[in-house]
Amino acid sequence: MSMPLALASLCLLLLFNGCLASRQHIFGQNKEWRLNQLEAREPDNHIQSEAGVTESWNPNDPQFQWAGVAAVRRTIEPNGLHLPSYVNAPQLIYIVKGRGVLGAVFPGCAETFEDSQPQQFQQQQQQQFQPSRQEGGQGQQQFQGEDQQDRHQKIRHIREGDIIALPAGVAYWSYNNGEQPLVAVSFLDLSNDQNQLDEVPRRFYLAGNPQDEFNPEAEFYIRQGKQGQKGQQGNGNNIFSGFDTQLLAQALNVNPETARNLQGQNDNRNEIIRVQGQLDFVSPFSRSAGGRGGQESQQEEQQSQREKEEKQREQEQQGGGGQDNGVEETFCSARLSQNIGDPSRADFYNPQAGRISVVNSNQLPILRHLRLSAEKGVLYNNAIYTPHWHMNANTLVYAIRGNARVQVVNENGDSILNDEVKEGQLFLIPQNHAVITQAGNQGFEYISFKTDDNSLTNTLAGRTSVLRALPDEVLQNAFRISREDARNLKYNRQESRLLSATSPPRGRLMSILGY
Amino acid sequence: MSMPLALASLCLLLLFNGCLASRQHIFGQNKEWRLNQLEAREPDNHIQSEAGVTESWNPNDPQFQWAGVAAVRRTIEPNGLHLPSYVNAPQLIYIVKGRGVLGAVFPGCAETFEDSQPQQFQQQQQQQFQPSRQEGGQGQQQFQGEDQQDRHQKIRHIREGDIIALPAGVAYWSYNNGEQPLVAVSFLDLSNDQNQLDEVPRRFYLAGNPQDEFNPEAEFYIRQGKQGQKGQQGNGNNIFSGFDTQLLAQALNVNPETARNLQGQNDNRNEIIRVQGQLDFVSPFSRSAGGRGGQESQQEEQQSQREKEEKQREQEQQGGGGQDNGVEETFCSARLSQNIGDPSRADFYNPQAGRISVVNSNQLPILRHLRLSAEKGVLYNNAIYTPHWHMNANTLVYAIRGNARVQVVNENGDSILNDEVKEGQLFLIPQNHAVITQAGNQGFEYISFKTDDNSLTNTLAGRTSVLRALPDEVLQNAFRISREDARNLKYNRQESRLLSATSPPRGRLMSILGY
Amino acid sequence: MSMPLALASLCLLLLFNGCLASRQHIFGQNKEWRLNQLEAREPDNHIQSEAGVTESWNPNDPQFQWAGVAAVRRTIEPNGLHLPSYVNAPQLIYIVKGRGVLGAVFPGCAETFEDSQPQQFQQQQQQQFQPSRQEGGQGQQQFQGEDQQDRHQKIRHIREGDIIALPAGVAYWSYNNGEQPLVAVSFLDLSNDQNQLDEVPRRFYLAGNPQDEFNPEAEFYIRQGKQGQKGQQGNGNNIFSGFDTQLLAQALNVNPETARNLQGQNDNRNEIIRVQGQLDFVSPFSRSAGGRGGQESQQEEQQSQREKEEKQREQEQQGGGGQDNGVEETFCSARLSQNIGDPSRADFYNPQAGRISVVNSNQLPILRHLRLSAEKGVLYNNAIYTPHWHMNANTLVYAIRGNARVQVVNENGDSILNDEVKEGQLFLIPQNHAVITQAGNQGFEYISFKTDDNSLTNTLAGRTSVLRALPDEVLQNAFRISREDARNLKYNRQESRLLSATSPPRGRLMSILGY
Repeated sequence: MSMPLALASLCLLLLFNGCLASRQHIFGQNKEWRLNQLEAREPDNHIQSEAGVTESWNPNDPQFQWAGVAAVRRTIEPNGLHLPSYVNAPQLIYIVKGRGVLGAVFPGCAETFEDSQPQQFQQQQQQQFQPSRQEGGQGQQQFQGEDQQDRHQKIRHIREGDIIALPAGVAYWSYNNGEQPLVAVSFLDLSNDQNQLDEVPRRFYLAGNPQDEFNPEAEFYIRQGKQGQKGQQGNGNNIFSGFDTQLLAQALNVNPETARNLQGQNDNRNEIIRVQGQLDFVSPFSRSAGGRGGQESQQEEQQSQREKEEKQREQEQQGGGGQDNGVEETFCSARLSQNIGDPSRADFYNPQAGRISVVNSNQLPILRHLRLSAEKGVLYNNAIYTPHWHMNANTLVYAIRGNARVQVVNENGDSILNDEVKEGQLFLIPQNHAVITQAGNQGFEYISFKTDDNSLTNTLAGRTSVLRALPDEVLQNAFRISREDARNLKYNRQESRLLSATSPPRGRLMSILGY
Repeated sequence: MSMPLALASLCLLLLFNGCLASRQHIFGQNKEWRLNQLEAREPDNHIQSEAGVTESWNPNDPQFQWAGVAAVRRTIEPNGLHLPSYVNAPQLIYIVKGRGVLGAVFPGCAETFEDSQPQQFQQQQQQQFQPSRQEGGQGQQQFQGEDQQDRHQKIRHIREGDIIALPAGVAYWSYNNGEQPLVAVSFLDLSNDQNQLDEVPRRFYLAGNPQDEFNPEAEFYIRQGKQGQKGQQGNGNNIFSGFDTQLLAQALNVNPETARNLQGQNDNRNEIIRVQGQLDFVSPFSRSAGGRGGQESQQEEQQSQREKEEKQREQEQQGGGGQDNGVEETFCSARLSQNIGDPSRADFYNPQAGRISVVNSNQLPILRHLRLSAEKGVLYNNAIYTPHWHMNANTLVYAIRGNARVQVVNENGDSILNDEVKEGQLFLIPQNHAVITQAGNQGFEYISFKTDDNSLTNTLAGRTSVLRALPDEVLQNAFRISREDARNLKYNRQESRLLSATSPPRGRLMSILGY
Repeated sequence: MSMPLALASLCLLLLFNGCLASRQHIFGQNKEWRLNQLEAREPDNHIQSEAGVTESWNPNDPQFQWAGVAAVRRTIEPNGLHLPSYVNAPQLIYIVKGRGVLGAVFPGCAETFEDSQPQQFQQQQQQQFQPSRQEGGQGQQQFQGEDQQDRHQKIRHIREGDIIALPAGVAYWSYNNGEQPLVAVSFLDLSNDQNQLDEVPRRFYLAGNPQDEFNPEAEFYIRQGKQGQKGQQGNGNNIFSGFDTQLLAQALNVNPETARNLQGQNDNRNEIIRVQGQLDFVSPFSRSAGGRGGQESQQEEQQSQREKEEKQREQEQQGGGGQDNGVEETFCSARLSQNIGDPSRADFYNPQAGRISVVNSNQLPILRHLRLSAEKGVLYNNAIYTPHWHMNANTLVYAIRGNARVQVVNENGDSILNDEVKEGQLFLIPQNHAVITQAGNQGFEYISFKTDDNSLTNTLAGRTSVLRALPDEVLQNAFRISREDARNLKYNRQESRLLSATSPPRGRLMSILGY
């Protein structure tokens, strides 16, 4: 018996044992990987669409798989539409560049937006649509209302600096109505309670025939197989395409041809398509004068939204509603996004070092349900993000611009990441691991995603440092240093989160001051 | 060295490696299984008891193991008693047929029910029981009170259409006091936070000598082994049987013979026993005139219970009690069941297609702790349950009656279930996967269990469809269809959850209406 | 090809299969282990420090790994300081013996304690420290304030009988200011939501060069390897030691020598160090007269703390704050400990059998966030802890003193633990498993840790027994006993949680009483 055959038999023997169990390493939760080497990574997969590009980090990369997270960068060209889809995990999306609109669909919420239709179409429609005999219970008047206007759920304007929060299973689409590419980075928390499947990232499309963005090659292979099996080309890849066409047509009460269109057969545009003409939504924002006028309206919207939230919070407090049963009611009117690009709203600001803006559940209440938060930072050249650790969250950092030196230290005092991180790279900071970041000569801009809705940070230097919280004598004994050195450890940096590069060492400070 | 021996050595070598790890596939959480083929299944195991039958679905079936769920169907004959037991997961029980009583025991709750005893026994008891010297602190009067009446915790009437919710670790028993078999289907959510063991379903009996309902053969094997080892027959299988008999007798302060009776030795009746004579409980319900009178009282009970719940909710809102510390207080008076069989209480009703009733935490507050909900549906012949997906829950569907064609579609547009589901079968709809169901010629009746207490459903056809929430132009571009077709997609079905089979395609509707 | 070589190749072949997957058995969540044999265990690892000893239970012991828990016993000699550290899981610490102080550092909380400095040092400091030019925003006055006094976060007195609760990632240090050893047992709940890493226990030190207490040999091996690799001795083992020394010095604005001191190089004192001189904290407690006076003040503190908590609870109730967003605000002023050693505060007391004290989230609100609770018990000689099971928690029991016979029974009626447990041993009682404990001739004292903040117990004997909750006729039929025997089961033990050894069997009781 030759050895290769023996091994093959063995694998057969172990089919439901070792060999199958091994799939967990590839597809499942990867907790057996030892956390002893991290690496900043660029996207592994690249999918070209008709009107944009999707780049994903390989979800089987041990470090991301271990943390139960996945990430995607999407570039939508002007007039490009990212087809409606949803994923099996809550996600945070950061708009790196550009502007556009986003529509998120919440079940049971009303279609409160009405867009006027071209006059010609209205007339045409009025002839065609007639009161229905069905049990829908909608009389003639309402139905004609539907005739004249395009009713749909709320559409939200998005722009550079926005963080958008979406629960698992919520379908959404987005459209670039600007003049430059719309670039977004999405972060999926697969280990979240909202995901009751396994930790494989899954994107379900409601239209088109898109490739699997997390596993484009396997998908291609599967599709090839599918063609062979079914003897037909271009079998669709969206959720409609798995239904029997006749049954789908019957359910929707449409012609089989329309049902086939839903199934995306022979659609080669992939997931980001080019819109014919232009989507022109009548909305409170687009009514205002063009250019950047929409943003002012957006700010007004956020203002009014916040007032609603406060009222709602008051009601919840009186009514005790709370986390569980408020989901459905909350989502229809929920604010889904927060802009953290505006320098004047920074939570930490040091004119010598940079600024940090935080979005947690206090600012964006939906994050309480998602148990996620985000932080946007700008470090000036050579500035230092104070060494720190997170009490209760893993962190995934995406480098928006510039570069930085990053060191991540584990419980044995080993640097498990010691890298020059560059624009476009992504890296992981595991919970409780200490990290220090120093911006390069051109500065460093990043967005970080955290797996808790109110992440707590312990700093190791600066005004809020853990060292300051310790008595002098504890520091003296722990580090075998003089009381003066202990004092220096506690008080030599008066900055808090961001530290200027130029702060002279204490000795030099003393001499500068003439001592 | 022969190959079989080599393989054996290898397995020894891998004992703490591949071969051991492989147990996870068999016994543990099965997240390494790829979700690419589902199947409607009938129960795999069949256990005959003295007064009934227990049928369980193999918990090692990859699809159920993957979802972390287990299911059992139990048939209790008239005058049969399902012995007191508890499981390591919260469960929902649906009464498919018949009626009976159920007693659930909550620690620390008072014995508020008093049944009168036969006169003869009372006299006998009065002689025997005397005030005790022990520290129990219960004086003569009270002890005599215990003498005269049988005090025990609340007993609840159950009947066809009831959903019963039980937390993990709560002991309960049930008894068929009707004249036809009492049939129940139980659903266990092993992946629930309430289960802090592994994902193996475990039923702990407080009496008798029952087989392991989830693994009857292994159990038989173990029992055979036990006999060999201990050299004695009929060693019990309940939780008392593992204690030292003398110690148990001492703890209970009873004779060793009674302790041995607790241990279930030589008891061959299995888990459903036939009651000698008949259990006759004096309760608020049984006092009312016989026949179906008990049900009226039950409705009154539920009415009064709801008023209590409202008061409690008010208090909680004022007191902020909330989820965590309210458990103990809540359970004693908690309503555990809700009837969803009554057609007049349907949440969705379409005279042409059928009806759906939902039980979630809004109707049955204990479900908030259990994070489970249920849905009962009746589809008329050839009616369609609108294609849809669940945002936040896995669903396990049991076919009560009739049959249906079911298609479940994954994120690649593949049908991973495409089956004719028959009465008595169980199937899984994973979170976020799209599903369409069409009843057969005889209609279809089902009960579905969901792993969230307030499951949100996105529909793909009908009045509340996701498609209606999208702007016409998005549909036109996404599906490459005309505006008219986009309108048809949005408005051709005015029904919501259940769609009639007979609704004519729009073209036909037009012609019927004379266009 | 020789078989060993074949096996080696196979292991290479299976590198990302069986052999890698097997790591899960060693390092990860161990749910594949079958729960069929438990054992009371003494600590496996022993680490000698300069001023104390650390003993840990091997976290790879299948039973602890399966439950996702870890435990450590630490003995700090008088004047010993356990260096500041934090762990990746919430923990409960029980003080077995001695007294001391504990400082826990919460990010963002103010340094509210001020200790006066020796006069000489003050003068020295006043010369050195000067108003800083930095952006810290702290003017001259405040900075001089820092000069004169040692400000730090709250210090808490701890003593025998205290349960201390610490969230994951919170740094703390402790110091033995008494005259006898300070002995503490810590329990880590790695399967808790607060741990978002894997289930490996990880302790991160902020100082010194300590061994890995959960894996001292591997750590030694790693350190040896490190030396070889880096060609230098004594590379530190704390979180500072992984940072570049220059960068660290820059961040802290201190000399590189001080930075090197932080990194713990050449520090051989291990994790418990001997303090030079004595730590002398000025605090509300130590101001009171010496001896045990501190404890009175501590009680006053707890009293006042409780009043604050009540006010806070009222506010929360009005404000609806609740679990999620209250974390940060709550922690600064949170009470972290509760003494359960005081016999007069017992929750269950039987003068013939012993006493039990419980600490759950009702007594110590921070436990609601940690989802942990504890129970301290003293059983007199031969007393019995009534047979019972826990509805919703795994339990880890540490034997403080004496010994006991313990039986744990699984769902098949098998004793999976049947042992004489001795002082210093630790054992697991899995959720829902039935357990009976009988103290030995010298009595038995224990502390148990539970993985729920409000663990519910079902007893099988005594006044609150499950058997009492069942109707007589159910007992009669289930156990095939007479009504009299059923009555005996329900009423022969009037005690509740703890049962006296001397309670005569009912027959004997009757004869004693003269019947």
